[in-house]
Amino acid sequence: MASKGTQHPSMIVCLQSIVSSSKLSRDGNEKRMDTSHALKAKASADDEHLSCAGDLCSRAREEAVITGSPKRIASEHESIRAGIGKSTIVDTVPPSPPSSSPTTASTTPPKSHISFLLKNNSPLFTLTTTTLTMSSSNAPIPYATIGTNWITTSWIHACNQVPESWTLHSVYSRSQSTASTFAAQHNCKTTHTSLDSLLADPILRAVYIASPNSLHFTQARQCLSAGKHVILEKPATCTSKQLDELFRLSKENNVVLIEAFRHIREHNFLHLHKLVNEDKVLGPIYGASLPYASYSSRYTNVLNGETPNIFSLDFGGGALVDVGVYPVCFAVALFGTPKSQSYTPTICATGVDAAGVGTLQYDNFGVALNVSKAYSTSSVVEIYGEKGTLRVNGTTDISSIVFVDAKSKEEKELADEGKCLKVTKPDVNMEEEVREFGRIILEGDEQARQRLEELSRAIIKVTESMRRGAGILYPADQEWGA
Amino acid sequence: MASKGTQHPSMIVCLQSIVSSSKLSRDGNEKRMDTSHALKAKASADDEHLSCAGDLCSRAREEAVITGSPKRIASEHESIRAGIGKSTIVDTVPPSPPSSSPTTASTTPPKSHISFLLKNNSPLFTLTTTTLTMSSSNAPIPYATIGTNWITTSWIHACNQVPESWTLHSVYSRSQSTASTFAAQHNCKTTHTSLDSLLADPILRAVYIASPNSLHFTQARQCLSAGKHVILEKPATCTSKQLDELFRLSKENNVVLIEAFRHIREHNFLHLHKLVNEDKVLGPIYGASLPYASYSSRYTNVLNGETPNIFSLDFGGGALVDVGVYPVCFAVALFGTPKSQSYTPTICATGVDAAGVGTLQYDNFGVALNVSKAYSTSSVVEIYGEKGTLRVNGTTDISSIVFVDAKSKEEKELADEGKCLKVTKPDVNMEEEVREFGRIILEGDEQARQRLEELSRAIIKVTESMRRGAGILYPADQEWGA
Repeated sequence: MASKGTQHPSMIVCLQSIVSSSKLSRDGNEKRMDTSHALKAKASADDEHLSCAGDLCSRAREEAVITGSPKRIASEHESIRAGIGKSTIVDTVPPSPPSSSPTTASTTPPKSHISFLLKNNSPLFTLTTTTLTMSSSNAPIPYATIGTNWITTSWIHACNQVPESWTLHSVYSRSQSTASTFAAQHNCKTTHTSLDSLLADPILRAVYIASPNSLHFTQARQCLSAGKHVILEKPATCTSKQLDELFRLSKENNVVLIEAFRHIREHNFLHLHKLVNEDKVLGPIYGASLPYASYSSRYTNVLNGETPNIFSLDFGGGALVDVGVYPVCFAVALFGTPKSQSYTPTICATGVDAAGVGTLQYDNFGVALNVSKAYSTSSVVEIYGEKGTLRVNGTTDISSIVFVDAKSKEEKELADEGKCLKVTKPDVNMEEEVREFGRIILEGDEQARQRLEELSRAIIKVTESMRRGAGILYPADQEWGA
Repeated sequence: MASKGTQHPSMIVCLQSIVSSSKLSRDGNEKRMDTSHALKAKASADDEHLSCAGDLCSRAREEAVITGSPKRIASEHESIRAGIGKSTIVDTVPPSPPSSSPTTASTTPPKSHISFLLKNNSPLFTLTTTTLTMSSSNAPIPYATIGTNWITTSWIHACNQVPESWTLHSVYSRSQSTASTFAAQHNCKTTHTSLDSLLADPILRAVYIASPNSLHFTQARQCLSAGKHVILEKPATCTSKQLDELFRLSKENNVVLIEAFRHIREHNFLHLHKLVNEDKVLGPIYGASLPYASYSSRYTNVLNGETPNIFSLDFGGGALVDVGVYPVCFAVALFGTPKSQSYTPTICATGVDAAGVGTLQYDNFGVALNVSKAYSTSSVVEIYGEKGTLRVNGTTDISSIVFVDAKSKEEKELADEGKCLKVTKPDVNMEEEVREFGRIILEGDEQARQRLEELSRAIIKVTESMRRGAGILYPADQEWGA
């Protein structure tokens, strides 16, 4: 496993990072980066030089970014020089190129030093770290995939729709043949059967993880420690403490960790959010009913005495964490974190919940959940308020939002129907998610990232409480208890 | 208020009641009547006479009943004599006629004594009490109504469909003009503005109570104490201890108390019960979703700052006890008493729950409730199992029971559609309920009565726990606490 805070030249080095947060605030920029973790910038010059450094950085923030491969870094150094042509910087010492190819790469990439020198060769400052979170670059993010299931295919297809943000760089599978087959399907040339090898690739900047739930934590931890952004399929981890640890690691390594909740990025969910919270079409909220119950063909395996991963305690499975997170996330994104929650499961032969009903308790209303992989429902999502009911076709892939007036019963369609992205499972549409996550990373939208982090933390706490309250305990609960 | 165990001649005196319960059991009759409460029969004869009395009663049980007005009692005494013409009974002393008309009746009706004499004028036994529960008579039950709302009209209309069981005898209202108007609407000649007066009427055998919830207890208590059968609209009482007291009183006075849950008497509910519990069309049960949420026009009054009875704490109102009892009753009737339950209400300006969501917890599944008088839902009732889902149009007035196969999604209608009774609100159809309650009283079906009692006790315990757990407390909760 890569050590913490490893440095290699593939990371984006955003000069803004050494500008103090107070200065950023004065500039009206609300980003609050923890510069103590972001960069170790040594300024060995006098006060004047320091002041100069601040100005340089301030200008550079708007003008240039050091990014990408050694070649690109070199060229972008040129752009910095060009952009600040009248400044006192005359040279930079670019970082060393990577020492090995992906298949032979060391797990400890070479350290990166970028020194900015004044005309008299006295150092202005030297960047001695690599791990930086944000960038104003529009360069697409080279990413790898972990997992070769349909959801990974969906992710890749979505990324292909957003080539300005994402570029598939490599795929990982424990099995070389699986990796090769999957890579070939997606015109990808680089495969890895070792995570160490994958993460040693200096080009690689992000990893999409869609492995079985119980593997998420260790894989994400390794990726974050290696300084890669991580998009982690839901449920991010088995326990909330594991997720806390991953977010801690992401900050320590100045990379982004995002849980892949696609549905709250969808156009019509955002529209619904606005209708409820800004337009107040319902008036005060009186509650919601959020069903997500659909028979899974893998439940047939359970009935046949098998234990598919998603129905396995060891793999962190069950209906709540697999499909229940959609309505839980929907509720938390729409109404905030509940005061408390409860869950009454139907435990199947494998020991997990094949289904269950539950309630999220808010200050003056409840949200009813009905989640299942063992039966199906015909009920739709409903949100209740003083003025009426919003009837929505589901928590995901929203194509209809009907307002039903409480008194008159009159109905009115409020969805932006023209903006619905068509969804054909199993290739679900992740385009809105992929676009937004790419934007957050590329634009360095710390506020948006922070909101997603808070959402993920709230959701795992809710589902963990529901799950443990119902006596559904994973092996991870022992190691990562409350 | 009438004293406990008052006696008057209008009660049916079923001779079977003095036959010991052991004898009834030997006869294969499963009725278990508490004869110590049923009758005080003094047999002041020798062993031979006692034995004879037993035989007489055994025969009389199948042959005759003393019932109705003094005139009818007299004529039926004749029939007893005719039926047992060869016996040793030569005379009976019929009870005194009522001393006053309904409007001037004493609150303590005259005591009733029926003495059976042998030829030598030695008494065989004397009946000294009036209150008897069951009868084999097919004579329709003269009943009064308390309450003049639409639900009372529905009850009367239903009774009119079952004239062999019920006959409207009198109506009660605090206001004479209301009583007179209501009585005229239903071709009823007798009105009362005092409960004492109503209950002193010796012809009256049963009372249908549909007053505001908070009045149910004291009114039912008075009716039962006066020896009248009571059909009590749901919710029977505000607290479970109140209901316990009413059932105790009903036994003490050997009359029947039935809570008017019409929906579980409906043909298609009974059909559904059979499908789920006998035919096992779903296999093992995995849960249910039972919505009963419909905007009430009286919630408009609440929004306008008023406090209609059904939204008043003082009157024992709120969505849970008003409409929530339907799904709760549905669940308890179908699945039995839950292990535990919870409720998350939306409290409105008057302090009661205008709506709420909750869960009933069973051994390996949960039942989700969604009840409201402040919003409407489009969701239907669903019951889930291993083999699929039963989709039902509602908890009441069931006209459709669709089985949806879990795997194939194929649908099949299972309701007895031809047997659905048409329902036109506000005149809801109570015919099946009215027919069954009449049958229980007239046939003396103690087993059916007992089942209804257990159901009512379970339901009030569930709703009381949900309500108190959610902090919704009535004045009655102070006096009749847990």
